[in-house]
Amino acid sequence: MRVAVLGATGAVGQEMLATLESRKFPVSDLVLLASRRSAGARVNYGGCEIVVREVCPGAFEGVDIALFSAGGEASRIWAPKAIERGATVIDNSSAWRMEPDVPLVVPEVNPGALAGHRGLIANPNCATIQAVMVLNPLHKVAGLEGFTAVTFQSVSGTGKEAIRELASNSEALLSGEKGMSSVYPHDIAFNVLPHIGGFDEDGISEEEWKMIRESRKIMGLPGLKVNCTATRVPVFRGHSEALCAVFRNPLSPDEARAILEAAPGVCLMDDPGSYRYPTARNSKGSGSVFVGRIRKDTFWEMGLMMWVVSDNLLKGAALNAVQIAEMIQGEGICVS
Amino acid sequence: MRVAVLGATGAVGQEMLATLESRKFPVSDLVLLASRRSAGARVNYGGCEIVVREVCPGAFEGVDIALFSAGGEASRIWAPKAIERGATVIDNSSAWRMEPDVPLVVPEVNPGALAGHRGLIANPNCATIQAVMVLNPLHKVAGLEGFTAVTFQSVSGTGKEAIRELASNSEALLSGEKGMSSVYPHDIAFNVLPHIGGFDEDGISEEEWKMIRESRKIMGLPGLKVNCTATRVPVFRGHSEALCAVFRNPLSPDEARAILEAAPGVCLMDDPGSYRYPTARNSKGSGSVFVGRIRKDTFWEMGLMMWVVSDNLLKGAALNAVQIAEMIQGEGICVS
Repeated sequence: MRVAVLGATGAVGQEMLATLESRKFPVSDLVLLASRRSAGARVNYGGCEIVVREVCPGAFEGVDIALFSAGGEASRIWAPKAIERGATVIDNSSAWRMEPDVPLVVPEVNPGALAGHRGLIANPNCATIQAVMVLNPLHKVAGLEGFTAVTFQSVSGTGKEAIRELASNSEALLSGEKGMSSVYPHDIAFNVLPHIGGFDEDGISEEEWKMIRESRKIMGLPGLKVNCTATRVPVFRGHSEALCAVFRNPLSPDEARAILEAAPGVCLMDDPGSYRYPTARNSKGSGSVFVGRIRKDTFWEMGLMMWVVSDNLLKGAALNAVQIAEMIQGEGICVS
Repeated sequence: MRVAVLGATGAVGQEMLATLESRKFPVSDLVLLASRRSAGARVNYGGCEIVVREVCPGAFEGVDIALFSAGGEASRIWAPKAIERGATVIDNSSAWRMEPDVPLVVPEVNPGALAGHRGLIANPNCATIQAVMVLNPLHKVAGLEGFTAVTFQSVSGTGKEAIRELASNSEALLSGEKGMSSVYPHDIAFNVLPHIGGFDEDGISEEEWKMIRESRKIMGLPGLKVNCTATRVPVFRGHSEALCAVFRNPLSPDEARAILEAAPGVCLMDDPGSYRYPTARNSKGSGSVFVGRIRKDTFWEMGLMMWVVSDNLLKGAALNAVQIAEMIQGEGICVS
């Protein structure tokens, strides 16, 4: 297959290339694209150096699958042009996710949504993917009434400049100096910012709305009750989430553990007394969604609480996109 | 007044001394006490150097008020001995908090609980203090049904060694080396640990139980529904919390803002569109409890969500203890 990657030099673009390679996606030809600013960069793929080209309409000629991770604005401009030229676009931005005729797909959760796609498939928000990976198998058994999510999101979700800002501001503070914040409105070093994306007039952030709306669409539960507080924490890679899930039917922690142990793509890590629970640092480089600290809710009679961690650049972005590409390519879902 | 401080060299003990000084507490004589390990250290107070003595029963002779912050075990041993000798003990450990005849006091919330104390008053858990400081004024107006709390707690809550571990492990990771973890079971640098205190057989941590049980006792609401996920984040000082509060009567975000703006000890900081919300870094050194991101809950009809931050060593520990001492000394509550 002729594969294009738009945003090839970004944090997610780089992981898309690594994932295509590690999963042996049948790439016959690879077209690496980026904005003018990043064009000319050289990227290694399968032992070959490939020059990143500036994106233009002609770049999509003959492309079968185009993986996009260059932000919403680029997606809105280039997705229609790529589709016109026959490519199927798998878009990691939020530009198209809530369009009714665009499938929003987590292969383990709603593979059926891919049927009849019109050349554009949206890859969901990173924090939402890891939540639904765990909630959906439980929902199938006990009927999900709603959930609350508080996220602890790493700076790699913002991109490479944010990774640099966390490193340099942490170094500055440890040396007793003041760091410069340009990516974030406040210093992220040794701090927590309850702020991801812009705020609406009710004070809810874009990231919080993504968790609410995208989880409903992916699980096909338009009436799902959801609330979310999305925060940025001084972690380089790996998003953590505290979830409380409320069910219509009784579900014990042991039943939930058994369900999640068998769930594809989910890794149960739940023995807190022996210090076994997922952490962001441990999730790095893994394609799994880790879940632990499963316990009865002390607020809701029918609630369960849990701690969910995943590498936001992999299952939260690049891996999920490549899994969608694999389904399109007709191989079915192959879960790492 | 003759004041003793047990645990005078610890992170909270040091803040107790600074708070006594900055609030001009009428100290006629100051007895600084610690374990054998820390005895002999010299501490500055009001321009004088005071030698820290090893704690012994006789050290409490003639002491009016003894501020304890040396851990639960020391409190269990020394509080009865200090009380026997006529001192009133204000204890920052969790040793006595849930004893029915021991008042658990946040001066702005339940000053009446002090009446008839038997020489021992418990200072509540840091994360719980900042939650009830904000929840209680709202409860008085709208009737609190329950709340959920997810905490982002700084390492200074663990103590000085944890502060050193975060600094040294962060430096190590930034230099591409591996840090040593001895205070925490996993590396805290650039990580989040969903683990504070031991776990019970249901997988709920001690810190989570403190939030549940202490908030009920302080607010006098034994039937309050509470759940909590307590986490340790790589922040030196200042605890952050995502709260969802559910009320029996309607309460709009604007009404909540007006109530909290007038609440003693609370500082409203709520204009997220202009990047105004509390953060741990900004709370450092302030005795206030900061609240922002007040918004309607998208899960519960009668819910409000908010973000609450405070310096855990001040209102969460030293300041609250000194405020209790001020009440005992008969000055009434003086909120910073």
